[in-house]
Amino acid sequence: MRTVSKDNITEAFLGYVAKDTDPRLKFVLEKLATHLHDFVRETQLTHSEWRKGLELLYAAGEISTPQRNEFILLSDVLGLSSLVDMVNSPDHGTPSSVLGPFHVLGAPDVPVGVDLIGDNKGVPVVVGGRVLTPEGEPIAGAELEIWQTADNGLYSNQDEAQAEYNLRAHMTSDKDGRYLFSTVRPAPYTVPDDGPVGELLHATGRHPWRPSHLHFIVTAESHRPLVTEVFPSDDEYLDEDAVFGVREQLVMEYQERNDASQLPDDLEIKGRLPSTFYVVDFDFVLAADTGMSQLLTS
Amino acid sequence: MRTVSKDNITEAFLGYVAKDTDPRLKFVLEKLATHLHDFVRETQLTHSEWRKGLELLYAAGEISTPQRNEFILLSDVLGLSSLVDMVNSPDHGTPSSVLGPFHVLGAPDVPVGVDLIGDNKGVPVVVGGRVLTPEGEPIAGAELEIWQTADNGLYSNQDEAQAEYNLRAHMTSDKDGRYLFSTVRPAPYTVPDDGPVGELLHATGRHPWRPSHLHFIVTAESHRPLVTEVFPSDDEYLDEDAVFGVREQLVMEYQERNDASQLPDDLEIKGRLPSTFYVVDFDFVLAADTGMSQLLTS
Repeated sequence: MRTVSKDNITEAFLGYVAKDTDPRLKFVLEKLATHLHDFVRETQLTHSEWRKGLELLYAAGEISTPQRNEFILLSDVLGLSSLVDMVNSPDHGTPSSVLGPFHVLGAPDVPVGVDLIGDNKGVPVVVGGRVLTPEGEPIAGAELEIWQTADNGLYSNQDEAQAEYNLRAHMTSDKDGRYLFSTVRPAPYTVPDDGPVGELLHATGRHPWRPSHLHFIVTAESHRPLVTEVFPSDDEYLDEDAVFGVREQLVMEYQERNDASQLPDDLEIKGRLPSTFYVVDFDFVLAADTGMSQLLTS
Repeated sequence: MRTVSKDNITEAFLGYVAKDTDPRLKFVLEKLATHLHDFVRETQLTHSEWRKGLELLYAAGEISTPQRNEFILLSDVLGLSSLVDMVNSPDHGTPSSVLGPFHVLGAPDVPVGVDLIGDNKGVPVVVGGRVLTPEGEPIAGAELEIWQTADNGLYSNQDEAQAEYNLRAHMTSDKDGRYLFSTVRPAPYTVPDDGPVGELLHATGRHPWRPSHLHFIVTAESHRPLVTEVFPSDDEYLDEDAVFGVREQLVMEYQERNDASQLPDDLEIKGRLPSTFYVVDFDFVLAADTGMSQLLTS
């Protein structure tokens, strides 16, 4: 293959890959090279554009730290992270959505019905529902990791004014598969837009906002782990999430209520709710574990 | 577009791009997103694979410095750099090939016929030819930047034992379009394979070698600048250049000679050549400048 040309370079690339290469790696690289080569050919990419792309990656490397990974952000705003979520989502069950960079391990174990509001300011919301099998059977003993922003749009690990595990919890569903907690309504926030990915957003007239959301990881034996987020139906950024995380099945309604008497008795805050509060009812459906899940393991 | 799905995410991405975005940027991003999304869909890329790809980019950022750009190297070994060269090469004229990271500005002006061997060890080679228009007319006053490795496979800016501009020169073609110099045969060398790109090469059974080559930048008024390299026909890595730089038109023959008497009189080393030496005859054909060249400008 002495004469590499623009028409045979993909073939030349594949010819370089050794025969005993892991077949899956070979397949993924074949598809990657094919698409990147087609991209260059179809755009007749100029040297100047090629350099700009490489400069973006170099700048992403410069700004990245273990706490801020600009490459993940790039993947997010290109829709790649969400697409990986979607192609790996089971056909049945609650869709997955982006994990994001704000999950931390070690949130306190709390009982069903816990109040997470504490000293937080904001609109009080009672969030509850069940963890179910695809057949609608409740899953007792499912574990839920819950995290969200405070009313100021910041997570506790972004904000020194918040306690370490503020608005973070680890809950186990009860014998009826129920989970329940009171919290404050989370706030929309922007992804970091002061780096090269921000430049890309600005150059294409895109805003960096995400609609507000509650994060959940839901796991149960014999079921696929679910990493997801749920969004209020009235959020102004619902139709244009900077990282493409919104799915219709993940939209929940904040129902305004004035009467707490019909709320479950194990709701810790039940007797202390203000006259106006909101209720969110959202069930998680976990797909059966086919042994294929790689979501929480590498 | 509330419901982003794996089938409409590309459309959603394009919907986010503002109407007044630069049309070329919009077109390039559309093609990029389309190909990257297709890549994820066709491979059903797993979270684990997605993470590995992002880890490679993060590691490339960590190892990169202004002197070592791992992203350019990644582009090189994927064939992207060469493909960008090829789609931007004129149909007529000597093909371009990768600039590489070892060019430096400020090489000394030297006359046609100069000896670059000096104290260098290695096989002596007389390299010469003409700079021509596509119609075969000689171009007088064309400027040639020349650089190459020493016999040990290192460029002067990689090797403290070499003088700053060892085996580097800036020459102007004479009234007949001729260039001419004596040098030592350059040596094959490896691209840096101690970083994440090296890991990728190793995982696919690829070697990091480039065939030996002489680098040239050739410029002349009213012609497209040419960045290229020429390769000896007997190099063992000719058929598998790690960065896809070889083109058949860039292969030159090292002709063994024993008689210096027929060499041009302006060859500085003419009376001092050993009994066996090599001759390389290579003409550069510069395409007419269509005003489209972005090769040397950004």
